[in-house]
Amino acid sequence: MENSYGKMFRMTSFGESHGSCIGVVIDGCPAGLSVTEQDIQIEVDKRRPGKGVASTTRAEEDKVEITSGIMDGRTTGAPITLVIWNKDIDSSQYEKIKDLLRPGHADYTAHVKYGGYNDYRGGGRFSGRITASFVIAGAVAKKLLKLAGIDIIAHAVEISGITAETMSYDEIRKNVEKNELRCADPKAAEQMLKAIEEARAEGDSVGGLIEGIALNVPVGLGEPVFDTLEGELAKALFAIPAVKGVEFGSGFASSLMRGSENNDPFVVEDGKIVTRTNNAGGILGGISNGMPVVVGVAVKPTPSIAKKQQTVDIVKMENTELEIKGRHDACIVPRAVPVVEAMMAVTLCDFALRAGIIPEVFK
Amino acid sequence: MENSYGKMFRMTSFGESHGSCIGVVIDGCPAGLSVTEQDIQIEVDKRRPGKGVASTTRAEEDKVEITSGIMDGRTTGAPITLVIWNKDIDSSQYEKIKDLLRPGHADYTAHVKYGGYNDYRGGGRFSGRITASFVIAGAVAKKLLKLAGIDIIAHAVEISGITAETMSYDEIRKNVEKNELRCADPKAAEQMLKAIEEARAEGDSVGGLIEGIALNVPVGLGEPVFDTLEGELAKALFAIPAVKGVEFGSGFASSLMRGSENNDPFVVEDGKIVTRTNNAGGILGGISNGMPVVVGVAVKPTPSIAKKQQTVDIVKMENTELEIKGRHDACIVPRAVPVVEAMMAVTLCDFALRAGIIPEVFK
Amino acid sequence: MENSYGKMFRMTSFGESHGSCIGVVIDGCPAGLSVTEQDIQIEVDKRRPGKGVASTTRAEEDKVEITSGIMDGRTTGAPITLVIWNKDIDSSQYEKIKDLLRPGHADYTAHVKYGGYNDYRGGGRFSGRITASFVIAGAVAKKLLKLAGIDIIAHAVEISGITAETMSYDEIRKNVEKNELRCADPKAAEQMLKAIEEARAEGDSVGGLIEGIALNVPVGLGEPVFDTLEGELAKALFAIPAVKGVEFGSGFASSLMRGSENNDPFVVEDGKIVTRTNNAGGILGGISNGMPVVVGVAVKPTPSIAKKQQTVDIVKMENTELEIKGRHDACIVPRAVPVVEAMMAVTLCDFALRAGIIPEVFK
Amino acid sequence: MENSYGKMFRMTSFGESHGSCIGVVIDGCPAGLSVTEQDIQIEVDKRRPGKGVASTTRAEEDKVEITSGIMDGRTTGAPITLVIWNKDIDSSQYEKIKDLLRPGHADYTAHVKYGGYNDYRGGGRFSGRITASFVIAGAVAKKLLKLAGIDIIAHAVEISGITAETMSYDEIRKNVEKNELRCADPKAAEQMLKAIEEARAEGDSVGGLIEGIALNVPVGLGEPVFDTLEGELAKALFAIPAVKGVEFGSGFASSLMRGSENNDPFVVEDGKIVTRTNNAGGILGGISNGMPVVVGVAVKPTPSIAKKQQTVDIVKMENTELEIKGRHDACIVPRAVPVVEAMMAVTLCDFALRAGIIPEVFK
Repeated sequence: MENSYGKMFRMTSFGESHGSCIGVVIDGCPAGLSVTEQDIQIEVDKRRPGKGVASTTRAEEDKVEITSGIMDGRTTGAPITLVIWNKDIDSSQYEKIKDLLRPGHADYTAHVKYGGYNDYRGGGRFSGRITASFVIAGAVAKKLLKLAGIDIIAHAVEISGITAETMSYDEIRKNVEKNELRCADPKAAEQMLKAIEEARAEGDSVGGLIEGIALNVPVGLGEPVFDTLEGELAKALFAIPAVKGVEFGSGFASSLMRGSENNDPFVVEDGKIVTRTNNAGGILGGISNGMPVVVGVAVKPTPSIAKKQQTVDIVKMENTELEIKGRHDACIVPRAVPVVEAMMAVTLCDFALRAGIIPEVFK
Repeated sequence: MENSYGKMFRMTSFGESHGSCIGVVIDGCPAGLSVTEQDIQIEVDKRRPGKGVASTTRAEEDKVEITSGIMDGRTTGAPITLVIWNKDIDSSQYEKIKDLLRPGHADYTAHVKYGGYNDYRGGGRFSGRITASFVIAGAVAKKLLKLAGIDIIAHAVEISGITAETMSYDEIRKNVEKNELRCADPKAAEQMLKAIEEARAEGDSVGGLIEGIALNVPVGLGEPVFDTLEGELAKALFAIPAVKGVEFGSGFASSLMRGSENNDPFVVEDGKIVTRTNNAGGILGGISNGMPVVVGVAVKPTPSIAKKQQTVDIVKMENTELEIKGRHDACIVPRAVPVVEAMMAVTLCDFALRAGIIPEVFK
Repeated sequence: MENSYGKMFRMTSFGESHGSCIGVVIDGCPAGLSVTEQDIQIEVDKRRPGKGVASTTRAEEDKVEITSGIMDGRTTGAPITLVIWNKDIDSSQYEKIKDLLRPGHADYTAHVKYGGYNDYRGGGRFSGRITASFVIAGAVAKKLLKLAGIDIIAHAVEISGITAETMSYDEIRKNVEKNELRCADPKAAEQMLKAIEEARAEGDSVGGLIEGIALNVPVGLGEPVFDTLEGELAKALFAIPAVKGVEFGSGFASSLMRGSENNDPFVVEDGKIVTRTNNAGGILGGISNGMPVVVGVAVKPTPSIAKKQQTVDIVKMENTELEIKGRHDACIVPRAVPVVEAMMAVTLCDFALRAGIIPEVFK
Repeated sequence: MENSYGKMFRMTSFGESHGSCIGVVIDGCPAGLSVTEQDIQIEVDKRRPGKGVASTTRAEEDKVEITSGIMDGRTTGAPITLVIWNKDIDSSQYEKIKDLLRPGHADYTAHVKYGGYNDYRGGGRFSGRITASFVIAGAVAKKLLKLAGIDIIAHAVEISGITAETMSYDEIRKNVEKNELRCADPKAAEQMLKAIEEARAEGDSVGGLIEGIALNVPVGLGEPVFDTLEGELAKALFAIPAVKGVEFGSGFASSLMRGSENNDPFVVEDGKIVTRTNNAGGILGGISNGMPVVVGVAVKPTPSIAKKQQTVDIVKMENTELEIKGRHDACIVPRAVPVVEAMMAVTLCDFALRAGIIPEVFK
């Protein structure tokens, strides 16, 4: 607990890395929406590790299966369940290091919280693999948001200190799927790839930044005082393992700015009120202001590294050293990009349903 | 909506800047806790504007009054209501600029969301003043946390680009109330004060960073997957107007680090498992790991500035200029410090009650 | 806890019988609704004890005061707080019997649950008096429902075994406020009054049944599987002290019927689908079917009676006898009638907002 | 929506009668509880139709499968998913009557609410079959309650007007599984069976009453004001299709009683406070008082009957007649008995976890 998220569009995630499946129940999706396994599969496939960048030995086929809530290709109003059956599981590596706490992972906290009964195999419930269930829910949310004209894109803006050039949203969208890093700037992507390979060669890993953007969000989404758009998006994004920071618009940089600089002047343009700049990241008073909603997400370097690390054997209560075998993603930023999109979609979809702006699907 | 926060310890905030009161209902506080108006008043007084730094014409007396839930100085198990009656209200300034959207404020989004019926006087429900209700709830939460040995401190670590020296938690606690900036580094505080005065002289404002620290948090608080400690703290902190970024431990800086650097090695110390460093900010897998919980909070420069600003008259739908009269805090960071503490306290108290670690008060 | 009810229209009740006030925070009310203290007062006044029937020494003036959420007579979208300040409180009677558990009251369970810190004066938080906060919230809900054409009436159908004649909804509405028993059948009302007076003369009390009816409820309110219209209405009605049973349509009587008798045949009438009978009480599959929603509510005899009763002194842990002084309502059915209406209104309003059928007030 | 129930022990139900499965996600179950498929299967098998009484052509094998949350036979703290794959589905009967609204069923309300996209096959999400997911969750809840010494029994007390003799809880427990009617009085059971057979021979059905009893419930479960034990139990029980009334203790009969009769006198017995009678059904002020929690549940006659019924063709909007083919349970009371137990278990387990009285399983 708490494995559910959302008030009007609620996802309940279940499954473990090395259990029989990863899945999600979606409650609150309007009836009559066309949803096929293929629609969802496209999004889930984005979570697949790229070949150059990142790599796990696990050949994650990840075939999505609809098990409830959809009849004749349309949602029925009943809860939608979607499952990916885990295949190609090899838990043997984990048996060996079962008692050794992997630094940067949830092994220790889960062990204490669950009295040692937590599923430790592949990180169990704390594995990045469970974000597959987020992507599934996000795929459904995106379909609903599309009906309201809302569009979401995320992309890698920094990896290992290498920063992508700023570009227009159109360019980002056009470029983001062109390389396996999901970085819209091809030159930066090349350098990022090098940095990742270098880190991996040294048995190490790197982190980075993701930018998530929601376009065509109407004015009025977000609920003051506690369910602000910022607060709910942040909550949703911090559910992604490895996310350690979230900012909106000018975010942390605003702490260095003057009010006159950071305030976005209002202007009437084509009979519509807009702001000249978007330091607010599309959110004022916790409510969307009609400008693009822009969120920055800090992703820590993958905690699973090949390098020898100091740690503790929790059974013997002794200091010891740990070497994590197998191959791991030396950078999970690219695979986290679709997950950022998914959690933005789920959150915005929930707010859109609260605000009544999603057209009734069945009419 | 949504004016309630928390699952087991729930605060419901109400009131407006220029209405009759600001208050809060606290539901879920165990019975038998000693709570006096004086206990709460001490915390509320911390929100008062400092003399040098910041200043509003409003002489906010802010006397807290208990109106339910407490009998003979002890909580009864019934919902606790605490109210501050608004006094010394002058809404005349706001009448004049009623139709002009103040940049950086919620005027526009609130106007659209509430069809123009929103209380615009002093920002109404979107005023920083409503955080007085957060501080009240936080004061009760702190009393409960104290019973579990948990202690919270927040302090200003950066204002207008001037950064405080790193120091021990003991030093921070000792120094933080010594200056009106709530900066534990007295030298930095002096420079910060100058920067603020400079900005104010120019009719401008500055932002900054607050660090919040929770000490003696036991291992196990936080609920995967969605009610992570990071996610709930972030949600609570983004309820504070002007907060635009939240990070934990190494946060955004972790994006630049290698995994071998950012992972905190585990060691056994005095028969207890600890980590050598605390880049995780005391949280692994969304659950507290026994180390100090450390959160960084970005506060944007006060949007109310004296400088002329470009904006829109929403009734005439015309571009125009706005000059905000009256005196405003040129930097709200110092006044936001106790609010950060309060929201951390409310969140941790909720998790502590969920985990059953707050001693039953009445025994 | 739990002092809040509702998902989209949420009331948070606070206050105690002998504390400083009884009040409610209403969150989720659309902006722009005209609400005056007078609107609310009319409903609150219905809770006043009738002269003949029932009587308490307390002269409950119960003046409603708006303390937040309303500006210039209209809701602003901010939480609405309404308070009744307690006056004319005499707790001396309760001091004397403080340790004696009143049979049929919450004294014992509250004592154990709250470790003896519960407010025992006048039943504290468990007093029927707190239903004043329900009536306040219901008054606002009724105003919203009216915009959707939904109308709610409740009336006493049985008191002390005397049953009112069945009559049309129009007749009920016309008659219900004509006598202090809120029984639409004047003859039955006379007999009921006698029965109540008889019971009171003997230091005793009587119970009864209330029927609640919601007219013009559109098809589609109610959420399967757990937030059924029956389930939520029942939950709301069981919040009223003294309610011990809730049934819909033919309810308990349906257990004696054949399916062919109890099933309501569908027919097309004036181009609309209706049912010939309404054994379903307007609800099929947990969802309103367009017929009147009809709920039966069993109210136990007032537990406060003058007759000597056997009980326990909880401090001495000894058997003893108790005589409750003062005058109490010998039958609370008439005063519970407006409370049943209120809780039906709050529940239906919540569902109406979830379903998006309440017209946006401000347009 | 709303397919989840519970705050600390939350079940999310999914699946349809003629879809691929029926299942449930259980969130909040403490880690370390021993749970096997066999444990659950025993409870699920109780839902099977008896041979004499009731009968459906469907040979419901209903094999329970654990798909997440359990490792090595113990709960891990992760959400537990349990599924029954639907087999032996024949939807052809439903195709034929697809447009004819079955009286007493949710066909009409579901059609309107979901714009005609609802799964109509076998009642889809509104089928009694979905209560299999309730029984699964209840089986886990019962295991937890057992650790706190709480025991739940339900039994049929009336069917078609034939009422079982009152007997002790021990006798009920001993007898209830001895006949397929789950009536503890064997003589009454015989008569009930005859009445059912008679009704079926006439193409009709009968209703009845179930009594649910929870023993050894400690004082203090239930949360005033809105999450009363009565309110939450009622909400949970109304989720069972065909339940139309819920009462506690003397319930509806209390409306005919005097206060002096209905009040349960307190006495000290073996150093413990108990009540001499239990008209309160074990609940005072919404909180358990240590006496058995006793709830009466009215079950309407099965709406599916062979007799010709008047109804409407919703596509043609014409009056017509309907004959439901196939065999249906002429009385669902016996099969609803384990479902009443299950929903009581889930509710009490939730309150027990909120109150912290379930022993930490793993220690």
